[in-house]
Amino acid sequence: MTEQIKGGVTAPIGFSAGGIHCGIRANQAKRDLALILSDRPAAAAAVYTTNLVKGAPLTVTKENLANGQARAIICNSGNANTCNADGIEKARKMCAMTAQALSISPEDVVVASTGVIGQPLDLCPIRTGLPELVSTLEATPEGGERAAQAILTTDTHKKEIAFRFSAGGKLCTVGGMAKGSGMIHPNMATMLVFITTDCAISPELLSRALREDIQDTFNMVSVDGDTSTNDMVCVLANGAAGNRPIKREGEDYDAFRQALRAVNLWLCRQIAGDGEGATKLLECTVEGARDTACAKTVAKSVICSSLVKAAMFGSDANWGRVLCAIGYSGAAVDPNTADVSFLSAAGRITVCRSGAGIPFSEQDAKRILSEHEITIAIRFADGMGKARAWGCDLTYDYVKINGDYRT
Amino acid sequence: MTEQIKGGVTAPIGFSAGGIHCGIRANQAKRDLALILSDRPAAAAAVYTTNLVKGAPLTVTKENLANGQARAIICNSGNANTCNADGIEKARKMCAMTAQALSISPEDVVVASTGVIGQPLDLCPIRTGLPELVSTLEATPEGGERAAQAILTTDTHKKEIAFRFSAGGKLCTVGGMAKGSGMIHPNMATMLVFITTDCAISPELLSRALREDIQDTFNMVSVDGDTSTNDMVCVLANGAAGNRPIKREGEDYDAFRQALRAVNLWLCRQIAGDGEGATKLLECTVEGARDTACAKTVAKSVICSSLVKAAMFGSDANWGRVLCAIGYSGAAVDPNTADVSFLSAAGRITVCRSGAGIPFSEQDAKRILSEHEITIAIRFADGMGKARAWGCDLTYDYVKINGDYRT
Repeated sequence: MTEQIKGGVTAPIGFSAGGIHCGIRANQAKRDLALILSDRPAAAAAVYTTNLVKGAPLTVTKENLANGQARAIICNSGNANTCNADGIEKARKMCAMTAQALSISPEDVVVASTGVIGQPLDLCPIRTGLPELVSTLEATPEGGERAAQAILTTDTHKKEIAFRFSAGGKLCTVGGMAKGSGMIHPNMATMLVFITTDCAISPELLSRALREDIQDTFNMVSVDGDTSTNDMVCVLANGAAGNRPIKREGEDYDAFRQALRAVNLWLCRQIAGDGEGATKLLECTVEGARDTACAKTVAKSVICSSLVKAAMFGSDANWGRVLCAIGYSGAAVDPNTADVSFLSAAGRITVCRSGAGIPFSEQDAKRILSEHEITIAIRFADGMGKARAWGCDLTYDYVKINGDYRT
Repeated sequence: MTEQIKGGVTAPIGFSAGGIHCGIRANQAKRDLALILSDRPAAAAAVYTTNLVKGAPLTVTKENLANGQARAIICNSGNANTCNADGIEKARKMCAMTAQALSISPEDVVVASTGVIGQPLDLCPIRTGLPELVSTLEATPEGGERAAQAILTTDTHKKEIAFRFSAGGKLCTVGGMAKGSGMIHPNMATMLVFITTDCAISPELLSRALREDIQDTFNMVSVDGDTSTNDMVCVLANGAAGNRPIKREGEDYDAFRQALRAVNLWLCRQIAGDGEGATKLLECTVEGARDTACAKTVAKSVICSSLVKAAMFGSDANWGRVLCAIGYSGAAVDPNTADVSFLSAAGRITVCRSGAGIPFSEQDAKRILSEHEITIAIRFADGMGKARAWGCDLTYDYVKINGDYRT
């Protein structure tokens, strides 16, 4: 059984965290440097952006995680340290400085950066800030919260969550924090997710669980279709819960995967709902497709359609755009079998059956679509494939946030 | 030699056209029914949307063009006649009514519709309007202009052009008109292009010329990434210029292709620049890619990026977003060799060399990007592949046009 508890990355035993304003960002009210520390060695795994243009921190993190172990995560906001000639060198220095301040090995440090692309990263504020950051590390919800704040960019609120589960007779905890929003500069974005757990699990299974989970969670989220250069999801597992280490598939592994899924699903929805300028969280569910791949392709196509997103902003039951996005998705589906419904806390309305419109109350539809969380439900008669994807509406504020001249 | 001349679809010999308000659209000031007629049989070819959800008129047009011949094009705006159970039947009736009014065969009629998806098309206004439309057909620039107006939806201005060229010692003319804007309902869109020529050319070569040309023209235009259900490009060639019919490749065929390219390029740029809510025409040029396919993939990825589009709206030289869009395009390119420049009537500025930022004057960049037509020029060192794509900026008005509740 998986149960939500208070806190985030410091909820599992043995993890402390902190976040300060060190001076990378001009706004002194915004924290810009986060640190997460495990008090003992931890198994570690990560997945990275598929963008060919990769942030330097990702390259260095990949090197450091080659042995499947890590102790700390250092992350700055305000500068992505990407597309700079000296990026790799500086990411390595960031690890070295962090390791020195924590008296650990530089190879045990995960490094991440988010913010402006193509502007050299100034390491001075980080060097100056590290002693304070280390001295304020806390194994408390407050420590985790400060870290969760320090990685934000255009996000409007922090995103952290924790779930508890049982493995091998011991209570284990998975905690996570994330930033999302849009993609990059001016006010930046990039999706970063850091997950901690006190569950004892081998690096191999930890990596497999993460890789499998993101196919149905973070890989099904789209705010604007732009895959950032700096996306990363990283998990540390330090075994402090004292469970018999999970080294093979089975009941314990399944319990861990379930808790990981709970954390990641929650963070996904938070990221989608807090997309740049978003007023609504959109979920697209697809059922009855030929297979999962077809269902995923359709769900992502609908959630990415600018026209669907703009219609949802306007609470417009414009199902023609949903059908259009199904049709150009590239998935092998039969649009003539498609039923389309809209759902929210205010009710459910079916607007299209077997690919053709049916009469419906525009007033009811408007009421349903005026809610903050909307589900676009599509059902084919092609097979058993199903999938979910998350996104947000397209608003004036998205254009404002991303069209304003850099300042 | 290809030379621009006055007019549009009626510029070639033997074509008349007209456009009226028949009552499909509520606004009486908007024409909503267009007709183009060749005074003699014409070779005909068309290309259609790749969307699996296809408008009924496309299906019927495809049937009618199976013999490579047509005489007339009938097109209404205000209703797409798509996703309706009786769509095909009504599209066939529209051909039959038009054929009767013109005393030609229904199989010689090309039918197109653009507008709301999923609302049954009322044929009464078309039946009532056809006699007036036929009686006002004119082989004059005014006739062509009325037709060009009647196919518009959210377009802010008509789009028509004509070019003259020589083939086999005779002067020939190619004329064209288009509508573009966004995709569909509420104020609709869809790309429709109708081209006429008095050049004598076999249906086979006409079809081949069209298919080849659109790969570098209409297939490289994106307003919002949503491929409409009703897109169509159709060309009629009636041979009235009296040239020796073009039946094989050679000088005459090349001259025709050049004129066709001139017409289509011009219409492409018009469609992109008049995208829904657009304030700027964007062109992305790619050089030095491994091959043409890579170059096209990159150019389309950049022109489709919401973040690049929003940056251009804000006149923001945000080259990091260009590099990001290169990186996630899926093209096999080396981003570390990428140079990026911005060009306009106000000058040229290079902002990135070999994948890394270089110092530049933000003031100059702002001045260059404040123009109405912007080129984003990307150069790799991978090979000889090059391509161009066209799009527009992402603005508040795009969201407004597409987010407003249907009225």
